[in-house]
Amino acid sequence: MQLKRHNLDWIYFLDLFGTLVFAISGVLTSIEKKFDLVGSIVIGFVTAIGGGTLRDILIGKFPVGWLIDRNYMLVIIVGCLLSYLFRSRILKWRKSMFIFDTIGIGLFTILGIKTSLSFGLSVEVCLIMGVVSAVFGGVIRDVLTNEIPLIFRKEIYATACLAGGVVYLLLVRTTGIEDLGIVISMLVVMIIRYFAVKRGWTLQLG
Amino acid sequence: MQLKRHNLDWIYFLDLFGTLVFAISGVLTSIEKKFDLVGSIVIGFVTAIGGGTLRDILIGKFPVGWLIDRNYMLVIIVGCLLSYLFRSRILKWRKSMFIFDTIGIGLFTILGIKTSLSFGLSVEVCLIMGVVSAVFGGVIRDVLTNEIPLIFRKEIYATACLAGGVVYLLLVRTTGIEDLGIVISMLVVMIIRYFAVKRGWTLQLG
Amino acid sequence: MQLKRHNLDWIYFLDLFGTLVFAISGVLTSIEKKFDLVGSIVIGFVTAIGGGTLRDILIGKFPVGWLIDRNYMLVIIVGCLLSYLFRSRILKWRKSMFIFDTIGIGLFTILGIKTSLSFGLSVEVCLIMGVVSAVFGGVIRDVLTNEIPLIFRKEIYATACLAGGVVYLLLVRTTGIEDLGIVISMLVVMIIRYFAVKRGWTLQLG
Repeated sequence: MQLKRHNLDWIYFLDLFGTLVFAISGVLTSIEKKFDLVGSIVIGFVTAIGGGTLRDILIGKFPVGWLIDRNYMLVIIVGCLLSYLFRSRILKWRKSMFIFDTIGIGLFTILGIKTSLSFGLSVEVCLIMGVVSAVFGGVIRDVLTNEIPLIFRKEIYATACLAGGVVYLLLVRTTGIEDLGIVISMLVVMIIRYFAVKRGWTLQLG
Repeated sequence: MQLKRHNLDWIYFLDLFGTLVFAISGVLTSIEKKFDLVGSIVIGFVTAIGGGTLRDILIGKFPVGWLIDRNYMLVIIVGCLLSYLFRSRILKWRKSMFIFDTIGIGLFTILGIKTSLSFGLSVEVCLIMGVVSAVFGGVIRDVLTNEIPLIFRKEIYATACLAGGVVYLLLVRTTGIEDLGIVISMLVVMIIRYFAVKRGWTLQLG
Repeated sequence: MQLKRHNLDWIYFLDLFGTLVFAISGVLTSIEKKFDLVGSIVIGFVTAIGGGTLRDILIGKFPVGWLIDRNYMLVIIVGCLLSYLFRSRILKWRKSMFIFDTIGIGLFTILGIKTSLSFGLSVEVCLIMGVVSAVFGGVIRDVLTNEIPLIFRKEIYATACLAGGVVYLLLVRTTGIEDLGIVISMLVVMIIRYFAVKRGWTLQLG
């Protein structure tokens, strides 16, 4: 996900961190499928930048963000190499990965909303673009590895993003305090996803 | 598919109607796959806007249409919710759905051609963009649900769209009467597809 | 992949030739899957223009190249029809196809780099765009035919492209002779791929 450097520098670093986590999660998936090194890097890349890239394309932001800020590429390639080399160790950390991954989707949701708002799009479109930013990296990863995207089957992944996005917009519009909105809405995403996974919540009706 | 409101208001409403039908068809597919509510809405969305979105991206029309006319989003979300809730009833209507669906692809073909013509592209490219608008929503739906796209296997879906597009262009260029061209070319799409399905036509050679 | 006509006319013709070869390779894949004629043409098209189209979208070059130079469409449609009609004969030539296909990916890599450089992107991004141009047509083909993309499993396809791209950039920057750089880097791609396939090289670690 892409963000111009500005006074919210901690968001920029969290964004790079989210990109790193998504790249690692992509590589781990590719290793389970017995991909070679190049395949793993491609999947790591696509998982990390897929959602933000699709958002940039839909709203018409070119060239898409990671092409013009080389830090994203650097983080992804380092993440891919490290996770490919130390994969057995990282697989043991999968539980902590889950927490990082949830931070990632929460952050990507909010960055997606902020980017879309700056393009003058309506609130509900910005919400959808936030969710797209957060989940489509994983969707493209699953399509490329010939799986039915996880988002359609388990976990209320997208719903957590949507709820976080709504909370963020409400808080920023009422209090005007950006940083507070980000922190609280990310907590919302994390809490919903945590309980969803713990208790096997789904929204399936029948 | 997206269209500026103008004196052809009946087309605008038919377009929204086509979008609704495509959303419903997406949800029905997702239900067969046992997706949860969120997954169904995503598939409904993608089926409804996928073709027009790909066309807009290829010809360089940003932001893509459904981001700037909220009626499309409204229609899709209502369509998804209704078809998810009343799915058993709608599944019984599948025969009538087939007719609506054919209206949808016919109309999307022509709207795709009109949009591309307004970007100054050559006639044969506009024809292809018409077919892309009509069929790629279904292709993306099939890819996301891990199926080989229907268009590659059964029904001469794309051929019907292509024939309708050719008839539309010929009629508008010779008679100059837009509405007449639309009605007749949509009838062509419907008739070809009807007989194709009834009689099991394909273009397979061996 | 798209290229303005200029004094490097031999590249333009090689590019059309590469497009033709990719279209044929797409049709052959679709025939193995028992697609009908329309399906085969769609797969031929997507294989031939997929990589260049994705590159154009990412860097923001609209309308994407094949929409505005009809020679590409012409070559693809002729290639699809011929290879569908004479498929049994072409299948016998598969060995020579392999050579043509390698020429195609080598050339598409370099054209992708050149196009991206002209958009002022950084060298490492241009390298990636070169690889994207060369391999994503095949990736999209594999996704649409419900296969795990070949690039993730066998052959060091993408690595060969990357190596060729690096050699090209080095030669052009040091010698300044464009044509020489193209010829040598294409030889590099071909030699790597040839030995990779012959000797079953992969980059898999464990």
